[in-house]
Formats: sequence, structure tokens, C-alpha cells
Amino acid sequence: MSIRPGDVALLVVRGKKFLVTIKEGATFHTHKGYIRYDDIIGKPWGIVAKTNMDVEVLVLRPTTADIMEKLGRKTQIIYPKDAGFIIIKSGILPGFRVLEAGSGSGSLTIALSRAVGPSGTVYSYEKEEKFLKIARRNVNRFGLGNVIFHHGDIRDGVDERDIDAVFLDLPDPWNALRVVHEAMRPGAVLTIFVPSYEQIKKACMALKESGFSDPEIHEILIRRIECNEERTRPATRMIGHTGFVIFTRKILADY
Amino acid sequence: MSIRPGDVALLVVRGKKFLVTIKEGATFHTHKGYIRYDDIIGKPWGIVAKTNMDVEVLVLRPTTADIMEKLGRKTQIIYPKDAGFIIIKSGILPGFRVLEAGSGSGSLTIALSRAVGPSGTVYSYEKEEKFLKIARRNVNRFGLGNVIFHHGDIRDGVDERDIDAVFLDLPDPWNALRVVHEAMRPGAVLTIFVPSYEQIKKACMALKESGFSDPEIHEILIRRIECNEERTRPATRMIGHTGFVIFTRKILADY
Amino acid sequence: MSIRPGDVALLVVRGKKFLVTIKEGATFHTHKGYIRYDDIIGKPWGIVAKTNMDVEVLVLRPTTADIMEKLGRKTQIIYPKDAGFIIIKSGILPGFRVLEAGSGSGSLTIALSRAVGPSGTVYSYEKEEKFLKIARRNVNRFGLGNVIFHHGDIRDGVDERDIDAVFLDLPDPWNALRVVHEAMRPGAVLTIFVPSYEQIKKACMALKESGFSDPEIHEILIRRIECNEERTRPATRMIGHTGFVIFTRKILADY
Amino acid sequence: MSIRPGDVALLVVRGKKFLVTIKEGATFHTHKGYIRYDDIIGKPWGIVAKTNMDVEVLVLRPTTADIMEKLGRKTQIIYPKDAGFIIIKSGILPGFRVLEAGSGSGSLTIALSRAVGPSGTVYSYEKEEKFLKIARRNVNRFGLGNVIFHHGDIRDGVDERDIDAVFLDLPDPWNALRVVHEAMRPGAVLTIFVPSYEQIKKACMALKESGFSDPEIHEILIRRIECNEERTRPATRMIGHTGFVIFTRKILADY
Repeated sequence: MSIRPGDVALLVVRGKKFLVTIKEGATFHTHKGYIRYDDIIGKPWGIVAKTNMDVEVLVLRPTTADIMEKLGRKTQIIYPKDAGFIIIKSGILPGFRVLEAGSGSGSLTIALSRAVGPSGTVYSYEKEEKFLKIARRNVNRFGLGNVIFHHGDIRDGVDERDIDAVFLDLPDPWNALRVVHEAMRPGAVLTIFVPSYEQIKKACMALKESGFSDPEIHEILIRRIECNEERTRPATRMIGHTGFVIFTRKILADY
Repeated sequence: MSIRPGDVALLVVRGKKFLVTIKEGATFHTHKGYIRYDDIIGKPWGIVAKTNMDVEVLVLRPTTADIMEKLGRKTQIIYPKDAGFIIIKSGILPGFRVLEAGSGSGSLTIALSRAVGPSGTVYSYEKEEKFLKIARRNVNRFGLGNVIFHHGDIRDGVDERDIDAVFLDLPDPWNALRVVHEAMRPGAVLTIFVPSYEQIKKACMALKESGFSDPEIHEILIRRIECNEERTRPATRMIGHTGFVIFTRKILADY
Repeated sequence: MSIRPGDVALLVVRGKKFLVTIKEGATFHTHKGYIRYDDIIGKPWGIVAKTNMDVEVLVLRPTTADIMEKLGRKTQIIYPKDAGFIIIKSGILPGFRVLEAGSGSGSLTIALSRAVGPSGTVYSYEKEEKFLKIARRNVNRFGLGNVIFHHGDIRDGVDERDIDAVFLDLPDPWNALRVVHEAMRPGAVLTIFVPSYEQIKKACMALKESGFSDPEIHEILIRRIECNEERTRPATRMIGHTGFVIFTRKILADY
Repeated sequence: MSIRPGDVALLVVRGKKFLVTIKEGATFHTHKGYIRYDDIIGKPWGIVAKTNMDVEVLVLRPTTADIMEKLGRKTQIIYPKDAGFIIIKSGILPGFRVLEAGSGSGSLTIALSRAVGPSGTVYSYEKEEKFLKIARRNVNRFGLGNVIFHHGDIRDGVDERDIDAVFLDLPDPWNALRVVHEAMRPGAVLTIFVPSYEQIKKACMALKESGFSDPEIHEILIRRIECNEERTRPATRMIGHTGFVIFTRKILADY
């Protein structure tokens, strides 16, 4: 497959990454010269283009992680390290119908959308119009047609039923448990993402009384390693905390 | 959907997890009594069954992480924390054609198979017949029809071309670079998993000379948090190291 | 200085460490033969002795960390990683008068005793007679003459005044704040060690109302690295959590 | 004890820390007003002074960690988390004669000086005159009379013998092993601090051939926890890597 107008590309210039939409007649400027999109349209992904100042520009299709990382520049996001773990712990498969609240910047929405694929659906609730707009724009940019946004507070109820997996990134997830329990198929995984210990405690205590199984709680740390001819070593700085991930299942206790 | 004979179920008894295949007429024994599979066949997933000693047994469909964790009891595996990150960093989508070597216990094979779905394919190379047999059995147990196993050394070449993502879990990944470069579509992600620093160094040095982009190297740590009425705290023991994950892209330098 | 009867020695046999008291006429047995103490008495520390089966035994004076680690085999202890940080964050110097509660196994007592030296004093309160006995025996074994044990509950008050640093390892440190505040010199550091988040919260909230400065809270993780001819890598297993360390200062707000 | 001219004080203004030398007639300026040193001279440590704009200034005697952290603003330093562990693993006691190379900014020199006290001595070698000057000035500022600086390359030999503990923070510690082995008493601990894996490997291989015991290698991570009325959580950012700490002992193999 070759690069076409409208595609979102990841351009890598001397280690710096840029997420751009390819447009005919347009130009991408760096501090080391520019490239014309017309010069790369029709060429294969993976090429190393050159700016007019002869600096290399790697032209790539963005991965899920690339997209998430770039969206994170502007708003708080779920990080790839957490999103990957969430998807694999939730048992998400192509075709799944997944529910999330809130949408935030749409970062996890995009990860979920890509994971469930065209045969699946992501229902994303967001009560802040400002965020909804950002999330919708981000999702549309990548041409993801399987996301349905709802402007509203998930705590007021949802129409969906038999949902295969739910993800909550709310300040007070315990207030949404009744609603999501009703929307989920039995046995489905509910994931809750919270930054503080007070929230862990309150969420876990509420889960026990709301028809969910004993939760598992994890935190994931990621450290970058630097490697060159002279030395291999962990990077000096790292993110010390994003949030804690709580996994639980809807159970049918008195079936 | 309800529980059927032949399904693989995750049974949770007092926090302990068991991966079992549901069989008509058969019985599951715990140290706290037994349940008859006939009593749960036809019932919905997510039910809380009871043993003859009245101990609760949660009956769940296993997630990708559940499957991986249980396979890990017998052989060294890629962990869910690493597999989730690999899938999201590789840009794997439903429908992708993915190549891996070696198959090992089939733990990552299963995660990749589930991620690419029925419209995708996983090509898995394993040179040790012993491992191939284990991996094949594990994959078959979950009815995953999109995996093609090859008994052979990936370093001797592969037939596949235009592969969308490659994963190498080999002691000497640098010796497979020429082969996988040829098999990959330009821009595709190659992931290398190695436990030691010597291997990071050797792999990264070889990548630079083999038509791949500057690698990114990460390690992922996961810590469990315990929460009950009295206290919330990180667990005393954790896994300190599984391996380092190296990501790189096939590039077309002189296109 | 040479090895003398009554000295405590660290014997290292094929990577395994043993803390023994050198006795004339006695013998140290390993699974690889024995050594007679008489054969090493009078010899310098650091020698490599040999068992009757010709296996090497390294004879060392134990460091503070060696002592702490060996005591930890039987009871819960403060680990060297935490003790070292505590001493350096508390500003402990030779000659300091330090207060601790509870004594526990005497592990931190020994570390503090060694840090303040013969010109300093450690006052150690323990309400459980069982622990007091263990702590006293451990301290005496190393001939540390600068420790004064008190059998009693620190919450009931202490006689000491103008204490240079205080360490609390209690389930409810907030109940000892009034007592230790009175015992401390102004500006002195109070260290609190707690395993759970609920305790962090409760301690920190209480500190603010008890004449202490805004606390600093840390957790310390330690990971072992393995290195041999073939490979260098982090160890597979590590301790994920011992406790959180809270540092604060007695302040004179209305002076 | 009260605050005197010439003392080094740690001033804490709204969470920010300043290391200042108290001078008669001088003034300390913050962005929130100033305090006159004359107003605090003679008063006890631990007081809460106020600027002319009524902002609180906590006046404290700096701990070892406070000193190290402030020195670190200008040059690369050994961190308190590492220094504390080093002291406790080295078995350093008041009265010890300790050798270090290089001096760097004098950060660890100060920690060692404080740990061995007036009855001990720190011999500190530094070949770069620029660093020697910085280290000497930092040590002098705290009135530490037990440090002897040497301008020179430790690899060229040292005069000291029967040294109780050695610390090496050099790019090529393996080149100093012969010299320090000769300077150490048998059984003494040698600590090596290196940032990269290549250095771990090279150092450990050299130790085995230089009369030292099998090394132990560790890395220490520290994470800050934030706690206020609303929430308790790990800090977002942390230092991901400072260096690896290698411990070994001089042994007498053929005694």
C-alpha cells in the first residue's frame, strides 16, 4: 500500500516524531528544511524522504502507540503501557462491543476502536462538550468508523446492553457501577483507571457491593533504555505514575 | 452466550484460577469439593457455581491475559504486560498478517491470534519439535483457526512476504534480521524480546546495518496492589524482570 | 585486626551467607564440609578458608547491611535500602541521641547504633516483651554498648528530651506524635515507616496538627543485577514493597 | 543549640529549599519578601521565621540528604538514595578511614565525612582541578575537618594503607583495582558506582581477577508520594536512573 492524500503519517526527523495529515500541494516544515507531500504521495510507507536541506525524514504509518503518544501532548491521556495491558486483560477481541466513559481526548477510544476493528463498536460517553469535541475530531482524523459518541453523563444511564467490556476513566467511578453493571453481559470485564489510592479504596469497596468479582489492581511502570556504540543504560528520567488499573468481572451471584 | 461443551473456562475458587475444558459428564475437583460440568453447561458465563461443599466457583470466559498467565505455569512465557505493549506498539490490527519466531509455549501466539482475529493470520516458526507440539496444542485448545505453524529455523528463510508485523523471541535475533527484513512490508514494526543487556547491544548494533530504523527499547514493570477494608498497599513480591522490548521499523533507505 | 573468639563473622560459602559467633574449640558445618574456628582465630579478616571437603569459605566482618539481612530471616525488618536512606535523610551523625519505637527485631536499632557510634545513644522502646527480648539479644550479640532499651509503650510518654532524631515503626504512629514532639529538639527529623496508604494519609494529616513540618514521603525499590561472562540482566524476582518512609521536622511555629 | 553566624542553614519557603550561610548584617531574599539573618541569629533551629511580606520561612539545620540534594543542582552527584545504601552496605562506622575517587562535587565526600565523624578520615582523590576546587569549597562550607583531598589520578597510586572502605566513581574503575586493593585492609568493602551496563560487565570481569570477592550489583529507585486532604498518589515524574552500585570485598585468597 502506498501513501495517499488524507492518510495520517508519522514523520520522524532526527528522533522527533510528527503526526501529519498528507495533503496534496501542501508542505511539511521542520527546523531542518521542508518536504512537499506531493513528493511522497504514491510512494510506499517506510521510505526515507529528504528535506530540501538534505535531512532525512522517515515516513511511517502511525501505530496505535504513536497515535496515543502524540495526542498526549495536549491533554492527559491513557498511556500505551496502560492501554495495551487493559486490552489484553479485558479480553477484547475483534468484533467486541465496548463501552467507555469519559472519552477524554479520545486516546483510549482510538486504541479500543483499533482493537475491536470494523466488526466491533466503541460506545464512548463524555459529559464535557469541550472534550467530546476533541475526542470526536481525533477519532475522525484516523477515519475510524466504529465509534459512537454520546454527549452525556454515564451515571445517568446508557442505552447499550450486552456490552463485552467497559472502561471507566472518571473521578468517581463508583457512581457509575449500577449503570455499567446493567449494560454489561455477565462475565464481562470492567476496567477502572484511577490515579489515587483513595479512589482505589472507594472503588474496590463499592465493587464488592455491586455485583462484581474481587478486583485485581495493578500499576505499570515503563522505563526507556538507551543504547549506542558506547553504552547501554536506562534513561535518566521516567514517568513515575499515570494511574492504577482495576479489573473486575460482572458476576451473576444468585443465578 | 452460554457455556457449552468444549469451551475453555476460567474457574476461580477463593482467588485461585484454573483453566479447564468443559466436558459433558465430567467433574472439576478442588480441595473444597467438586462441581459437575453438566450443572453449568447451558448457563451463562459469569455465574457463581457452588461445589458440593458449598464453596463458590466463579465461571468465566478466559481473557487473553488469563490464558497467557495459565500457560506460564509450565514454561517461560511472554507476560501480558509485555504482550499488551507489544501489540499496541506494533500497530497490530484485526486482519494483520503477523510473523513470530519462536513459538515457545504459544503464549504470545495466542495473544497475536486473538488480536488479528479471523481475518488475520499468525505465522509461527519454531525449530524445537518439543515446543512446537506444546504451542500447537495450546493454540488448538482455544479453537484459534488463524495460526499457521512452521517447524523450522526462521534464520533459514520464510516463504511469507508483505508481513505486517514481526515478533522475535530468539537467543540470537540478529541472525534473523536479513530474513525478516525480506518478509516484511516497508514501514512494518519488528519487535525483539531479549532478557539481557548484551543482547540489546548486539541486536541494536545489527539493526542499524540491516535496513531498520533507530530502535526504541523499553522495559515494563508491573506491581500488584492489595486492597481490603483495612489497608491498601503494593504487594510484597513482584517480578523484577522478564525482558527488554525493542521496537524498530523496516525502512526503505534508498527508495 | 585479626579474628578473635566472640567476634561475629559473616561466612560466605558458594554465595550463601551465614552469621556466626566465633568460639574456641567449636566447628562450623556446611553441607560441603566443616571448618574449625580454631583454624581461623588469629588470622586476618578477609581470608578464604577451606572446609575439610576443600570448599572455600570467605570469612568477613559483617557490615550493617549484612547484619540486617540476616536478622530478617526470622522477623519482619527494616531493609538496608530503607535504613540507609533513613539515616542520611535524618541527618544522623556520630554522637547523636536517637529514639526509636518499636524495637522490633532490633534490626534498625543496630543500624542506628552503628551510625551514632560510641559517643551517641539509641533509646529503643518496645511494648511487646517477646520482641524486646529478641532485639536485646541481637544488639548484645554485636557488643553494641550504646543502646538503652525500654520495655513500654512510647505512647505513654518517654523520659528523654532534646532527642536529635526519632524513628517510628508502629501501626498507629499518629498516636505517638505528642510524646515524640515533646522529646525532640526543635528542627530534629522524625521518620515514620508505614506499609499502607491509609497509614500515610492518617499520619500526614496528624502531622500537620501536631507541630511538624510538611512531610516528604518516599518509597524505595531495589533491584539486583546479575552479571556473568555470558549475560548481564536484572534478577527475575524482587521485593515489590517494604514500606513508605515519611520524613518531617519538629518546628517551632510560634516562637 | 542556637543559630550562629557561619552556620549553614536550610531555609524552606513554601516547599522550596535554599541552602544559605548565615551572616551577620546580611539578608535572604525570596520572591515573597526577605528575612534579616540578624533576626534569627541566636534563636533555636526549627523556628518558623517570616519575611517582611509575612511569608513563612522554616529555618533548619541541613541533613546529609539536604546538603547532597542542593549540591546536585549544579553538577552530577551521587544521590541520597544511593549514598545511604552505600554507607550501610560498606559497613562504614564512626572512626573509619575511607578512600574515594573521584571527588566530583564533593557530594558523597560530605556524606562519608559525616558518617565517619571527627574520629575518622576521608581521603578524596580527584584529577580534575576544576572539580577538586568545587569539592573542596563544598566540604569547607560545612566545616568538615576530617577530609583530606589529593589532586591526582588514583590510578597512579595512593599513599594510604589499611583503608576501611573504598568508593570509586570513575569512568574506568577497572583501571584502579590494583591500586585500591593494595590500599585496603583485607575484608574491606569496595563500592563501585557506574551508570552503564558495559561498565558493570567490565568492572565485574576485572574484579574476579584482582583479588576481590564475587560482586553484588544493585540499582535503587526512589519514588515520591504526594499526600494531601484529597488524595494520596505517587508523583508523576521520577528519576529513572542514576547508576548501578557494585559491592565487593578485598579477599586474601592464598593466605
